[in-house]
Amino acid sequence: MQNCINRQFILVKRPVGMPVKSDFKMVKTLMPTLRENQVLVEMHYISVDPYMQGRMLARKSYAVPYRLNSVIKGGSVGKVIKSRSQIYNEGDFVEGMMGWQEYAAVNDNCIRKLKPDGAPLSSALGILGMTGLTAYFGMLDVCKPKEGETVVVSGAAGAVGYVAGQIAKIKKCRVVGIAGSDEKVKYLTEELGFDAAINYKKHSYLRPALKRACPNGIDVYFDNVGGDISDAVISLINDDARIAICGQISQYTMREIPRGPRLAGMLLTHTALMKGFLVFKYADRFEEGYRQLGEWLREGKLKPAETIIEGFENIPKAFLGLFKGENIGKQIIKVTNN
Amino acid sequence: MQNCINRQFILVKRPVGMPVKSDFKMVKTLMPTLRENQVLVEMHYISVDPYMQGRMLARKSYAVPYRLNSVIKGGSVGKVIKSRSQIYNEGDFVEGMMGWQEYAAVNDNCIRKLKPDGAPLSSALGILGMTGLTAYFGMLDVCKPKEGETVVVSGAAGAVGYVAGQIAKIKKCRVVGIAGSDEKVKYLTEELGFDAAINYKKHSYLRPALKRACPNGIDVYFDNVGGDISDAVISLINDDARIAICGQISQYTMREIPRGPRLAGMLLTHTALMKGFLVFKYADRFEEGYRQLGEWLREGKLKPAETIIEGFENIPKAFLGLFKGENIGKQIIKVTNN
Repeated sequence: MQNCINRQFILVKRPVGMPVKSDFKMVKTLMPTLRENQVLVEMHYISVDPYMQGRMLARKSYAVPYRLNSVIKGGSVGKVIKSRSQIYNEGDFVEGMMGWQEYAAVNDNCIRKLKPDGAPLSSALGILGMTGLTAYFGMLDVCKPKEGETVVVSGAAGAVGYVAGQIAKIKKCRVVGIAGSDEKVKYLTEELGFDAAINYKKHSYLRPALKRACPNGIDVYFDNVGGDISDAVISLINDDARIAICGQISQYTMREIPRGPRLAGMLLTHTALMKGFLVFKYADRFEEGYRQLGEWLREGKLKPAETIIEGFENIPKAFLGLFKGENIGKQIIKVTNN
Repeated sequence: MQNCINRQFILVKRPVGMPVKSDFKMVKTLMPTLRENQVLVEMHYISVDPYMQGRMLARKSYAVPYRLNSVIKGGSVGKVIKSRSQIYNEGDFVEGMMGWQEYAAVNDNCIRKLKPDGAPLSSALGILGMTGLTAYFGMLDVCKPKEGETVVVSGAAGAVGYVAGQIAKIKKCRVVGIAGSDEKVKYLTEELGFDAAINYKKHSYLRPALKRACPNGIDVYFDNVGGDISDAVISLINDDARIAICGQISQYTMREIPRGPRLAGMLLTHTALMKGFLVFKYADRFEEGYRQLGEWLREGKLKPAETIIEGFENIPKAFLGLFKGENIGKQIIKVTNN
């Protein structure tokens, strides 16, 4: 139940390289007051995502940097407990960029209503939310996999990767995942039906293992990781390969501009495409994505995966865990006192 | 006139790094005899192109390696002086991959007839040949320039670059060329109407000059060169930029895999596209390309540029000159004794 205190996490220091716990501070503030067309939302589930590290830095990227000493913005799901909106009623469940706080007063045009469709609430932050849409548009719009092609996904057990790989399976491809533990490899092959998966931590040189897993070369690479892993994958691409750059988690926390083999020559001789993409560029097609992902989920063609940590105070721990690969599927924090 | 001796250049050593004159040897052979459906062609113009360096190496690329001690294959233009073909008559002018030799017996389905359309014969190796088509498809199909956008071309005074830049001008873009001499810079801006051009050899660090020439950032990059020049260009791309990889002449002769800053992060934050392309993938649209390039040429919207060296014996010199940037426009050898 609502009390008069709102706990928030604010950014007190911009990370240098890998973020650390002391970059964040939990503060107690007063419950926000509502203005016209706002609702008060009690948070139930809070998302942590690798891209947020970029917003913690001072440099401008595709999203503006977080302000220091302000609440950290990110996706969350909660219940409307007070409404001055024409659109929302008390008791409605909503999703939006409400951030790392227990309560938020938000404009009613900045959130979306969650229909009671049988899917767990938390899935609105994962397979039926931003990360699901990211996998959907990245795989279908950038990679355009064709039946029988070989598709490699890095960060394959991560929030986007595990959905991207499953979509490629739906499209009848040979799907090979790269992940960071035997548990993840087992999950990908035994639970999700990936054709093969590789624990990259077991290979000081990834290429031979990848070559064995991709006897016909690689037609599509859905990249969440970057760095050495991508070097190995790209060294095996076929003609007319498509490489979707979705994330570069291995590179985000580097202090200097990372260097590696130049790829333009490979792209040239293989007439290959490499394209960065961001889900918000597909905003006008989100409804299509939600609908299709929901349908596949109900048909059992897509399986959801979430790693849920309980307790508001554990948000920084869960966030930092993303960079150590602690999650399988979407990392979510359950706010247990609500 | 025809005699009974045919001079050829053969590859006697595969280059290590930069090719050298002693990799080639001129030999005298007997005039070839004709089989059914073949024509005997007397060469008038012979093409040298940077991609040929790749075929001189042992490693398989998109084209098979040249065989040692065999005549070097490449584009050329000549006159049919004997015909056992239903299609060609003596006196016809033809273009095809007839190579570095004075005479060739070729199958009549491996050449194309040049119509007497007023264009100089040699242009069938340049602006109305492979390099013109390469510029045409690379610029229009990969880069898709829109009116008002900023287009940067590296190797801008080269055989493909000078056409690519002119096509971007036709599409009403701001066109900035990067080239390797003040003479080329002057040619690009004063003769071809490029909005700006930069002599990269005058800048130990290219980025500031490029930034001045591209005050609105870079929307399209047509790359013939690679390496440091590309690093500078790509550091200035706008959101949704398109980068066409047409050539990497600065990298072809490197002995080790070149390294540089990793680009995937830039492609991601700018949702940019990078694509390698090869002209032969557009074979089913060559007629369209020839027609449009010819039309622009007749209308004066495209200006042709050729650097012609006379004398069959000078082919290796002309070829090696490509890697020193000695040519403006298409480098062609005129076979003067024919």
